[in-house]
Amino acid sequence: MYSEFELIARYLAPTSAADAAGVELGVGDDCALLVPTPGMRLAMSVDTSVADVHFPADAPAAAVGHRALAVSLSDLAAMGASARWCLMSLTLPTADEAWVADFAAGFHALCKASGVTLAGGDVTRGELAVGVTVIGEVPEGQALTRRGARPGEVVAVTGALGGGAGGLARWQAGRRDRDDPLLRRYLTPEPRLAAGMALRELASAAIDVSDGLLADLGHLCAASGVGVALSPEALPLAEGLAAALGDSGARRAALSGGDDYELLVTLPAECLAPACERLAADGLALTAIGRVTDTPGITGVAEKGVAGWQHFSGDAS
Amino acid sequence: MYSEFELIARYLAPTSAADAAGVELGVGDDCALLVPTPGMRLAMSVDTSVADVHFPADAPAAAVGHRALAVSLSDLAAMGASARWCLMSLTLPTADEAWVADFAAGFHALCKASGVTLAGGDVTRGELAVGVTVIGEVPEGQALTRRGARPGEVVAVTGALGGGAGGLARWQAGRRDRDDPLLRRYLTPEPRLAAGMALRELASAAIDVSDGLLADLGHLCAASGVGVALSPEALPLAEGLAAALGDSGARRAALSGGDDYELLVTLPAECLAPACERLAADGLALTAIGRVTDTPGITGVAEKGVAGWQHFSGDAS
Repeated sequence: MYSEFELIARYLAPTSAADAAGVELGVGDDCALLVPTPGMRLAMSVDTSVADVHFPADAPAAAVGHRALAVSLSDLAAMGASARWCLMSLTLPTADEAWVADFAAGFHALCKASGVTLAGGDVTRGELAVGVTVIGEVPEGQALTRRGARPGEVVAVTGALGGGAGGLARWQAGRRDRDDPLLRRYLTPEPRLAAGMALRELASAAIDVSDGLLADLGHLCAASGVGVALSPEALPLAEGLAAALGDSGARRAALSGGDDYELLVTLPAECLAPACERLAADGLALTAIGRVTDTPGITGVAEKGVAGWQHFSGDAS
Repeated sequence: MYSEFELIARYLAPTSAADAAGVELGVGDDCALLVPTPGMRLAMSVDTSVADVHFPADAPAAAVGHRALAVSLSDLAAMGASARWCLMSLTLPTADEAWVADFAAGFHALCKASGVTLAGGDVTRGELAVGVTVIGEVPEGQALTRRGARPGEVVAVTGALGGGAGGLARWQAGRRDRDDPLLRRYLTPEPRLAAGMALRELASAAIDVSDGLLADLGHLCAASGVGVALSPEALPLAEGLAAALGDSGARRAALSGGDDYELLVTLPAECLAPACERLAADGLALTAIGRVTDTPGITGVAEKGVAGWQHFSGDAS
């Protein structure tokens, strides 16, 4: 009665913590039944990662699993939401059980590290793709959106930039050493969930850096109706980036490379120090990189019209 | 800055009813923000429909949109949940705007008819596939699951069976007349949401018929730890099915064909009449087709070991 694909779906069963995580009924029925926290808003997002569009088809299976979840969790982080549940749609060309076991290990490890419970999903046949729906919670009125930036505020970014582009360049150059910090940044990005929650009442607007700093800053400016004067020399560069790409390559990667999954926020000047303190408690830097202005557009960068990141393949988001 | 795929994503923006439907923030930020109803459980499910696996790649675009949503909504119906929101992941080989416009029209029309609001999603490049996450609500303790069937109860099914298989046979025979009731059943199935809610306090267990009656009845029996004595002569056959497939073909389609998206329920004998009345108010039949027994297995059918439906392509679920 069961196909190979249904057997494989067993690797994607919820972890044992399900009962304690607001999952009344998990995989094995028509729907998952979840218990939301009273008084909270639900934050939801879905991202599909397609092989050779969003990641190399020959990337390590565990990294594919980690990365597909991380990309979606990054959207919850950008809203200041906690991560609670996820659903996964896995599309596979063949029922390769060893690959799925590694993939599931990477996925489940990040579930555990992020406090998110896999509550359901499906496995189908087709070109390799992973769709992940994430569901988080945020107190009413405290969600961070792209809309709240005001002239005079500080623009800041968590962690370091350019690691996604730098790591992809290494991958494409044939480097496979897992200890390489840039490769690690590209293959297994860390969603900034704790930072997003810590910034809830300090930041006025937020977005995650998935398409590249300039592109995502452009989205935030458009939503808020403001501009930004950027200080490119202040951009925090990913470890090893300048050595790998040279100074100008590193700056370009930091400005326009994608897949960094850092948080880009605006906040009143007086909130910068407390925000830095909160993030430092988790070992994460927050760096001021510019000012919000009332003139639309981004100034301070020579590379006008530098296009946003197009992920792996270069022609579709 | 925007790719063709991002432009196309505009067809998938929420309908204007969003504000009134518990959507605090829809498409256009990192996450959708949703307002759940206090005291309700969330019911969630995701289904991915892959071209030439779950539907013919050359099916009308509007039908592809309708069908991808209907398949997921059917899972909410089987839990007795109301439909509230959905997220869509659309993967397209090319940015064909006319196709997407038709696809979106089919999707949005079923959203409207089902009271569900599209709250977000993404569009990516790759083999044609549609992933739909649905989120519904059901009062605590009232969800219908596969687990509650008890010996002595009646087994019943909504509507009529075999229409999915009959319609697919017509499609594969080159029939394209949209007025054909079997083709319509296959291309644009109607999720039984109202029936699922009406059966909440009457049915003891429920599942939707997606893989075929015998296969799905098997799932229900396994989850409940019971068997079923089926009365195959009682199976309600889809309109035109016997004329299209002959008597034995029609019976086989009703038993083992898939994609019917009817609800298969068990209920105490005394609940059958009130259940029929409730569904009749919506113009839907509920037909008793067997009895729950305490002996595992399904009896009453000659076709032992008839395999479950494998959708369009025949080798993966």
